[in-house]
Amino acid sequence: MTADAETRAGTPGPDVVDAIRDEDGRLRSSFVEAVVAAIAANDGPRVCELAGDLHESDVGDLIETLEPDDRPKLIELLGKEFDFTALTEVDETVRVRLLEELPPETVAEGVRDIDSDDAVYILEDLDEVDRARILDQLPGPERVALTRSLDFPEESAGRRMQNEFVATPPFWTVGHVIDHIADTPGLPETFYEVFVVDPAHKLLGSVPLDRLLRTRRSVLMQDILEEDPRTVRATDDQEAAARLFERYNLVSAAVVDDADRLVGVLMVDDILDVIEQEADEDLRALGGVTGDEEISDTVLYTARSRIPWLLVNLCTAFFSASVIGLFEAPIEQMVALAVLMPIVASMGGNAGTQTMTVAVRALATRDLGGHNARRLIGRETLVGLANGVALAALVGLAAGAWFVNPQLGVIIGAAMVVNFVCAGLFGILIPIGLDKLKADPAVASGVFVTTITDVVGFFSFLGLASWWFGLSLR
Amino acid sequence: MTADAETRAGTPGPDVVDAIRDEDGRLRSSFVEAVVAAIAANDGPRVCELAGDLHESDVGDLIETLEPDDRPKLIELLGKEFDFTALTEVDETVRVRLLEELPPETVAEGVRDIDSDDAVYILEDLDEVDRARILDQLPGPERVALTRSLDFPEESAGRRMQNEFVATPPFWTVGHVIDHIADTPGLPETFYEVFVVDPAHKLLGSVPLDRLLRTRRSVLMQDILEEDPRTVRATDDQEAAARLFERYNLVSAAVVDDADRLVGVLMVDDILDVIEQEADEDLRALGGVTGDEEISDTVLYTARSRIPWLLVNLCTAFFSASVIGLFEAPIEQMVALAVLMPIVASMGGNAGTQTMTVAVRALATRDLGGHNARRLIGRETLVGLANGVALAALVGLAAGAWFVNPQLGVIIGAAMVVNFVCAGLFGILIPIGLDKLKADPAVASGVFVTTITDVVGFFSFLGLASWWFGLSLR
Repeated sequence: MTADAETRAGTPGPDVVDAIRDEDGRLRSSFVEAVVAAIAANDGPRVCELAGDLHESDVGDLIETLEPDDRPKLIELLGKEFDFTALTEVDETVRVRLLEELPPETVAEGVRDIDSDDAVYILEDLDEVDRARILDQLPGPERVALTRSLDFPEESAGRRMQNEFVATPPFWTVGHVIDHIADTPGLPETFYEVFVVDPAHKLLGSVPLDRLLRTRRSVLMQDILEEDPRTVRATDDQEAAARLFERYNLVSAAVVDDADRLVGVLMVDDILDVIEQEADEDLRALGGVTGDEEISDTVLYTARSRIPWLLVNLCTAFFSASVIGLFEAPIEQMVALAVLMPIVASMGGNAGTQTMTVAVRALATRDLGGHNARRLIGRETLVGLANGVALAALVGLAAGAWFVNPQLGVIIGAAMVVNFVCAGLFGILIPIGLDKLKADPAVASGVFVTTITDVVGFFSFLGLASWWFGLSLR
Repeated sequence: MTADAETRAGTPGPDVVDAIRDEDGRLRSSFVEAVVAAIAANDGPRVCELAGDLHESDVGDLIETLEPDDRPKLIELLGKEFDFTALTEVDETVRVRLLEELPPETVAEGVRDIDSDDAVYILEDLDEVDRARILDQLPGPERVALTRSLDFPEESAGRRMQNEFVATPPFWTVGHVIDHIADTPGLPETFYEVFVVDPAHKLLGSVPLDRLLRTRRSVLMQDILEEDPRTVRATDDQEAAARLFERYNLVSAAVVDDADRLVGVLMVDDILDVIEQEADEDLRALGGVTGDEEISDTVLYTARSRIPWLLVNLCTAFFSASVIGLFEAPIEQMVALAVLMPIVASMGGNAGTQTMTVAVRALATRDLGGHNARRLIGRETLVGLANGVALAALVGLAAGAWFVNPQLGVIIGAAMVVNFVCAGLFGILIPIGLDKLKADPAVASGVFVTTITDVVGFFSFLGLASWWFGLSLR
């Protein structure tokens, strides 16, 4: 019993987490309140005691949880104990605002101590002026390195890469390298492979640390190096790099410039963020939330950022309405059509959205491409037909019974089949088309698909009904 | 020039990829066709030449691209050159069907040579019988290890963990450990940290390889070990493990049993898959694609798997229709209402979906929790109000002009404001509520939100109009 109790205390892993986080992984309000109280009391020692030894991610979450005014106070009270890496873990809005409130010296001081990729991540969102003010505070070498990374395009591998890495000439022995690592201060905080470069700093290969350790000390690096390591160009898009990491299960990858000189290294933890971000963008885009809206944004900013999308839908909504407008007379003669028409449209919309979701995701993960596009277009159209027929039967029966009009049931059923086939066909054709046009399928597919299913739904149902029941159009 | 040309040839990284993949990272059809031809010609050497040295992920993609009948042929023709790890890279449907077609001896032979976590990944989807038939072919130790992993619940850390790891006693010196690693054959293929355990195999700590290399040979492991490594319990859910990796930027983590004994190690590349999968599930769920549908599924399977969701929407669609049914008489008297009502409903639906998307994602990433829920509910409601007013003005003007009836414009505008406020409020309340009820907000939120915006949209618009224009309800 006691032994077991000790055992538990022995592995702080999950338990430490539990101290500040609940089982869902959220920060405990009790903990947050304690920090808020300490900040209010301006009690530095207490704040350090509470948050000083926390992992940067926990500090980051803590900052986001605090009221905006308390955030800079927390950092001041933590003083030297505050690790600026924590700022890479908070929303951009929070970060930018916080950095503007802190004195540039403090930021420069903090940025100096952290890995270059984190420093870049923190500085890149600032406007030119603020950024310059901070960079000016940095000593030459650091400033040059950071400026070089910042010169690479946004969302490029060059922005995400770390400038610190371990590189050796090919003629060194494993033993020499191991001793070198043991004797050299100021090596990167973490690294998983040693790069082998020629005098021109051109990348010859890499040696994972486990392989280094498995090899006798007398062996030369050039004899054990991985000859074709997966490399990323500094100008490559970060998403391309992420896919490389995913596909080949990498933990780090060399970043080379256009002359194939080794300029940095990408780490998997940064790639994790990229992947999260990428999936996030797709998901929000499909939900009609474009732009970089964040949970910490204000009402006004959020409202404004969502308007464009709503305006697009406004136009498509009026377009669909105008289709209904063509059938005002028939609706007057048979008002049941007005009651039933939304069913055809919305069911088609749902079917189309299903197809579109699968297509958009498959395009994003590169599972859908030239070789299987034809097959999938066929599959989705047939799926639409199959489900269209199945649901048409149900809707037809229900509608026919509701309005005691079997023929009306047949008509709505027919319209549903037509709409479902269109839903399947365009649900996949539109994302593929947008992708071919180098547009992001996730962003625009939704409007097109639902507009088509609305228009086809209303038109086929009202049109068929008018024709079948001989309703005059004026 | 030539020098530069040589340089390029010197870094095969991207170039090797280019040989079989296009710039989008898709397999080149020229390459696929060559393989198909070789398979058709039953030309083993040619197949090996083409696909023998490929990375498992490339082989995996190749398998998926091939026609079902060619897949087992490819594996047979590759023979010893086929790395079964490739099967971890293909869809479940493809994998299961393929494994059923291959002789159990071949599969047993194959899973024997690969890491245990990959072996488990390959075997877990098979039904009891097939699995047993393969396990029986394995030598005792492997069989026991795999069976133990397979005994952990699905999607648990125990299923994803690797049984191979390097562990040392605390009193070993760094030098001793380094020599041990160099001298011991059959260590795990890749590892990033050395675990330190007591005689009872209880985890005392871990030493990252870079730290091992940075330390003098004479130092004892117990003096450099990370005292509280982030550990995962074998029974923990894989998503909880993934969040731990993300939060604390881990590349590997010790997996312990309930007695805190070290039983395995989780690797970041498996976590990458989990994260992808998790994001995927949210995205599909929001799109109404539940279940484990895959791009390689048949028409029938796909159609069936999508029906349940469409049936739910069928009911909600009829429910909304019944609301319209209440206003048959007013619509007959003023048919413009039928033309305009879908605008109110669909615009509200879009606004609600925007809010819901943000909420669902924030819940999934644990950014939305007790501490900020109230603030966000307030924000979303106000965003709804703000955008409702803005768009109400536009829609009101347009509708009023269209039907030369300013009053109708005012009515539709009022209805839109009402619907947008509801959209914002319920767009966030529903996901939070479902989350509190331990239901997956991503799966069910959509129906509820759009149903509410449809019903509120139709009811407020038709109701207000009937009242204002004094239209009789029968």
